[in-house]
Parts: sequence; C-alpha cells; structure tokens
Amino acid sequence: MITNTGYETVSQLTLGGLRMNAEIIGVGTELLLGQIANTDAQYLSQKLSQLGINLFYHTVVGDNMIRVKQALAIAIERVDLIITTGGLGPTMDDLTKEAIAEFLGLRLIAHQPSIDALEAFFVKRGRTISKNNYKQAYFPEGSIVLPNSVGTAPGAIVEHNDKVFVILPGPPRELQPMFENHVIPYLEAKSDEKIVSKVLKIYGIGESVMEEKIQDILANQSNPTIAPLAGDSELTLRITAKTPRNHDPLALIQPLENRIRERLGDVIYGVNDDTLESVVVSLLTRSSKTIAIAESCTGGLIARRITSIPGASTAFVEGMVTYSNQSKIERLGVSKDTLNKYGAVSYETATEMLKGILKATGADVGIAVTGIAGPGGGTPDKPVGLVYIAIGDKNGYMKVQDYNLLGERTRVQQTASSIALDSVRRMLLNID
Amino acid sequence: MITNTGYETVSQLTLGGLRMNAEIIGVGTELLLGQIANTDAQYLSQKLSQLGINLFYHTVVGDNMIRVKQALAIAIERVDLIITTGGLGPTMDDLTKEAIAEFLGLRLIAHQPSIDALEAFFVKRGRTISKNNYKQAYFPEGSIVLPNSVGTAPGAIVEHNDKVFVILPGPPRELQPMFENHVIPYLEAKSDEKIVSKVLKIYGIGESVMEEKIQDILANQSNPTIAPLAGDSELTLRITAKTPRNHDPLALIQPLENRIRERLGDVIYGVNDDTLESVVVSLLTRSSKTIAIAESCTGGLIARRITSIPGASTAFVEGMVTYSNQSKIERLGVSKDTLNKYGAVSYETATEMLKGILKATGADVGIAVTGIAGPGGGTPDKPVGLVYIAIGDKNGYMKVQDYNLLGERTRVQQTASSIALDSVRRMLLNID
Repeated sequence: MITNTGYETVSQLTLGGLRMNAEIIGVGTELLLGQIANTDAQYLSQKLSQLGINLFYHTVVGDNMIRVKQALAIAIERVDLIITTGGLGPTMDDLTKEAIAEFLGLRLIAHQPSIDALEAFFVKRGRTISKNNYKQAYFPEGSIVLPNSVGTAPGAIVEHNDKVFVILPGPPRELQPMFENHVIPYLEAKSDEKIVSKVLKIYGIGESVMEEKIQDILANQSNPTIAPLAGDSELTLRITAKTPRNHDPLALIQPLENRIRERLGDVIYGVNDDTLESVVVSLLTRSSKTIAIAESCTGGLIARRITSIPGASTAFVEGMVTYSNQSKIERLGVSKDTLNKYGAVSYETATEMLKGILKATGADVGIAVTGIAGPGGGTPDKPVGLVYIAIGDKNGYMKVQDYNLLGERTRVQQTASSIALDSVRRMLLNID
Repeated sequence: MITNTGYETVSQLTLGGLRMNAEIIGVGTELLLGQIANTDAQYLSQKLSQLGINLFYHTVVGDNMIRVKQALAIAIERVDLIITTGGLGPTMDDLTKEAIAEFLGLRLIAHQPSIDALEAFFVKRGRTISKNNYKQAYFPEGSIVLPNSVGTAPGAIVEHNDKVFVILPGPPRELQPMFENHVIPYLEAKSDEKIVSKVLKIYGIGESVMEEKIQDILANQSNPTIAPLAGDSELTLRITAKTPRNHDPLALIQPLENRIRERLGDVIYGVNDDTLESVVVSLLTRSSKTIAIAESCTGGLIARRITSIPGASTAFVEGMVTYSNQSKIERLGVSKDTLNKYGAVSYETATEMLKGILKATGADVGIAVTGIAGPGGGTPDKPVGLVYIAIGDKNGYMKVQDYNLLGERTRVQQTASSIALDSVRRMLLNID
C-alpha cells in the first residue's frame, strides 16, 4: 500500500506545473557487477540539465525482462521522459526494445533502412552477418528510428500517450553522437525555451584558487548560471543561459564570460570542445609552423595526442620515442658523457634531446620530455614523478623545467604530456 | 494497478529462494546534474558481487525528502539490503538519515562517541565547530554507528524487521574504507556463500559470432553464470560461480572455462586485468625479446599503449612516429621511388618501414603502420580507414596486411593499434 500512496505523491510532485521530468534507466548486468561505471548517466545528466529538463532519477537494472518491465512501470508513474541506455545489441541478453514493446503492448516490426544499413556495415567489414544481428533492425511499432553513425544498433523514440521513451545504445561512442544529432533536436523542438551553454577550458591553476578569483561572480549567479567542474588535471567553467525561444542566450553569456576572462586571464586556453592538443595544432597551423617531439617517459603520448587531431599532419612532422639511451644517442645526438654524467633524466639530457629533435627534423617548434614515470626507477635524489620538459624553437628559444608529478605511472605520463602541450601553447602565444 | 501487480511479481522474483538481494540508492542532486559520476555505485557493485550478494538495482535521487522516501518505499518492496550513499553532511541538503528515520518511524538520537570525535576533529584543525555540524552525530535509534576514519560524517547500519539499511557517506575516500573495515565484516558474518568471477579477454572476433560459437553454453548457464560484454573493439566473458563457504568456486569455473576455450581458441588473449599491451609486454619480457615501432597514421598510439605498462622499458627499445614522407625516408630508409610509385599508404611502404625500423634499432620484433585515419586524405582507391600493418622479426619473418577500418579518426587509430598488438601477440605465440 505504501507504494501506491507513494506513486500518487510522486505523480503530483513531478507533474505539478513542470514541463518535462525525466528518468534515465540503464539496462545492463555489467553495471550491477561494477564492470563499467554508468558514464552514460553522467553524460545524459549533463545534457538534460543544459536542455532545462528536470532529471529526477537514475535507475540501473540488469538484463532481466521482468525487472526491466518493472523499472518501466515505476518510471512511467513518476516521469514523462524515459531514456533507456543499453540492451540494443544482437545477443540474447539484449532485451530493452523487447521489454518496452511488451510493456506498452506494441509489436516489434522490421525497419528496412536499418536492415540495409546493417548488411552494408557487415559487407564493408568483410564480415558475414549472423542471424541474430537482424534483431537490431526491429523496433516497437510507431518508433522514430535513430540511425547509429558508429555501431550496428540504431536507437529509437517512442511516443506513447503523454509519455516519451528514448531508446539509446550503451556504448558511449554510439550513444553520444546519437543524442547530439537526433535526440537534442527532437527535445528542443518540444521546448518553448532556448538554453545555451558555453564551457571555458582552463589549465594551469588549482580549483580553489580559481574559485577565489571569481568568488563574487559565483555567489551572485542566477541566469546565466556558472558550474565549475574539476577534471583530472583541467578545470572547466560551464556558463548556461536560458531565454525564450525568440531571444539569444549567447547575448546573456558574453558579458559574464568577459568578466571571468578579466579575472582568470590566459589560464583559459579554449572553449567548449577545445583540448590542449587541438589548440596547439590550430596555433601551429594558423602560423604555418611545424612541430617535432622527442619523448622518453611519456612514451609517445604527446605525439598521440597531437596526431589525434584531424589535420595534424600539416603541423606534425615527426615524433621519436627514444626510450633507450642508445636511441637518445643515435637519433637525437645526446652525448654519452651527458648521459653518464647527469643521467637520462636530467636538465642536460632534456636540453640535448630538444636540440637533437629540432636539428634532426628541421621543425619550427620542438618538445623533449624525459622523466621517471614509475613505479620502478626512482632513487632518493631522482624520485618517481621527476620529469624534465624542454620546449623551444629553431631560432634558439628554449625553456627547460623540472616537475615533481604525483600519481601512478599513467597519471604521471598524462600530466607531463599536458604540461608540455600547455607550455607550447604559451610559447606560441608569447605568454610569459 | 500495473505497478502494484508489478511489485508482487518482483517480490516473488527477488525473494524467492535467494538469500539477500540489494539495491544501492545514491542521494545527491550533483549526480542528477552530471557534475560527478556515480563511482560509489560501481565500487559497491564490485564489492557486493564479490560478496555473493545479488545487486538488482542502482537508484539515484536528488536531495529531496519526499523523493528519497519514495525511493526507500520502492526499494523496501523489492530488496532486503538497501545501501544509501551520500547526504550525511552538515548542510540542510543532507537528509538521508532524516529520510530513513521518518520512513521507518524512528527517532534520530545523539551518539556521544560521534559528538566527541566531531569536536576532536575540529579542535585538531583549530576550527570552531558550527551548530549544524552536530547533525552528523545523530542517527536513527538502534543504529550500529560506523566511524568515519577520513571525514566528519559517520555511517550507520539499521536493521528493521527483515531488512537492512547501510548508510554511507558520498565521498569515495570516506565511503571505501568504511565499507572495507565495517560493512564487509558485517555482511560476511551474515553470508553462507562464496562467489568468484573470472574474466576471459577476447580480441579478433565479433560479438555475435562469439555468441553463436557458445550459444548452447550460454543458453544452459546457471551456476557458474556467463556474462558477455562488448567493449570498444574487444569482448569479455565473465564467468561467475557461487558455492557454499567451504567449497571453492574456481572448481566450478575451470571446466566451463575449458569448454569455452575449446570453442573460441586463441582469440582469448588473456584473463581478468590483462590488456593486449600487457600481454605483448609480458610475452616479450619472458622471451627477453625487444620491440621497436614505426608509426604513421597511429601517431604514437602503439608506443604509448606499450609504454603505459610498468616495466615496458625492458622490452621497448624505440618508437618512431614518421608522419611526413621526409621522416620515412631519413629515419627508416623508405625509398623515394617507393613513396612516389606506390604512395605513403601502401603495402610496399609498410614493408620498407618495417625493414627500416628493425635495421635502425636492432630490435628483435618490429611493427610498422601506415594508413589514412581521416577525416581528410582519402581517395576513391585509397579511402579513409585503409591501413597497412606490417609485423616481423630480425630473422626475416614478415607479415603485411591491409585493413579497411570504420569509424572516425581516433577510432581508426585505436583499432589499428589493437590489430597491430594482437598480430604481434600471435607472432610471438606462433599462432597462424
């Protein structure tokens, strides 16, 4: 009985006056076993809050027909928008569409365009399509089918009475473009407000220092709102403005952004989807400069980050992962004496690596990194986390600095690569 | 009505025969805004599965008294063990204990040891304790209080009729030691079973094909259970066995694992935490062989993956990211003619890159990759996604293959790096 009363209360609560209230239902036993984190829920939560949709619940349920239908029964009583993630694959475990169809009393019917896309996908891969794959081309009758630009499982939107079901695949790289390209436009069309966010990307300053610098601005926010978020080694500030459809939220964002930029200055390296590597690549491209990289402890991570950017090839000439002393000598001309006298992890070696990569490649700009990523290799005077980062250009400008980085191996490598990229950004902008 | 029937069904389902079924309720609006991921749920999910407790649901609800009580009302109808995370702080938003007390009709009473600990905590930091801090020392009557070794908010266990409520703080660094030191011993004392999982890591076969090869095994699973999971380009099979305390679950897992290995063979590259790169590094280390890598379109990703493994330095000699033709010529001795006649992305160039990297470095094993990662650079006869992967050793063994990889740039790079690593694994194991 308690549950029934419960439902009535919730219904009043969530439906009273509010435009659209949402619940995310993650379907997958792997989530309940902790094999993966529910990053889909976090991604969708951020997007829904940007869209001004009230998200009231996350639910996760296993690959179990009865329990999925139970979760749907609970959700439909307390929200208007139900977003499911996962359970769209070809295996017997994948039953989200089946559960929604059964729950709503709808048939699953074949969607020819999806069948064609599915077969094309396998042909292109030279793989034979197996019978159970066709499962992915069946949808509850009346579905708006959402094409999957990355994988084989399309999503769907089902409107049923006054409720909306958005059915999305589990893998983030499939879910995210599908949400961006198909679900956001669908939801925006239903809304009478426009909400726009602009994210400021920040590197090289601590969270508390940043918040002190803009304390008063944070304290007095209303519309636009400001959401600080601390990432692994970066910070972001999300400015979100809400206006009626016929106004431009950006007009509200701009003056606030200007005030924040006055306070924080050049630690703001970009906006929205900018990354340190994308900013470096575009700075290089715009000034038609080339870059070459000599890496030891970062093991190719810096080259990898730069070459992950489309069009990097116009700026990126060459990278050398000179892990062994031998390769430092042969490829970069680091002298045996230097290695013997100061060691591979030293100011002197970093300097010679930088000179070597610039000389060997003729690139305009160079990076050289040598350090101890750990867990092994540390000594009392050269502990794990000690990293030398050298940046410079072919005109002889050079800056070599040492850092003591915390965390385990991959964290040290990640931080070192970010510092190197940010240092090059500052050099290209002639900042300090 | 549907909901009520629903509940009865669930109750039968989850309580029928099973010892203890659990739900995690995360309390915190920051989770619903996507400001943080629900890592507590993943951590607790892993621990509960290791404890042999069936976790059936994750729920997340905001800092709202009525909705928290609603979530409790739903949970108590469908599970026996309810674990809440978050909402134990001093602010007015923190209301988890208050909601549980109201829901169960219990008073909140002061816990003197917690008051003392709280005051000591503030004295130690020379901070004055504010009145609302004492909120953290009040618990539902009859609680087993769980001391917080890191922060100011203790947790609690409340036994109510045949249900157990475990109340934990939100910050992972407070929640995890509390769970390890106080909750696990409590739960183990209640349990009469042992559960163990073993994960098989699989590469080079599609999810549906794998599914078909072991369809009968999957169809007839009970104990051990088998959970297939499709990652970005890999597959995993988690085998989980449950036995009475005095038996060994591994004895149930082994024969099933053997049957699966008979069906899938050498696409199973490792178990549990193994990765393609960790397996390659350990194969190289065990045979005291060295490796060198020449990368074009993967831009250092293969080197980066190998060097992310602790101890890689004993096997990894050097990587070259020869992005420009110039660097392919100067560093690897690829001939101008070959580049002009066949192009940088060709069987011939991949072959010369491999010979070049082996010659230049003297490594035992080599990898060379050249391709078009996109989005630009594709042509009708050489489309985006065309990648040549060459592997070989210093004794002249060589294998060069072309692939048409799908997806955007970083996906093509990721897949190419995985194929290269798996090819080396197969070479080192003399598989086909």
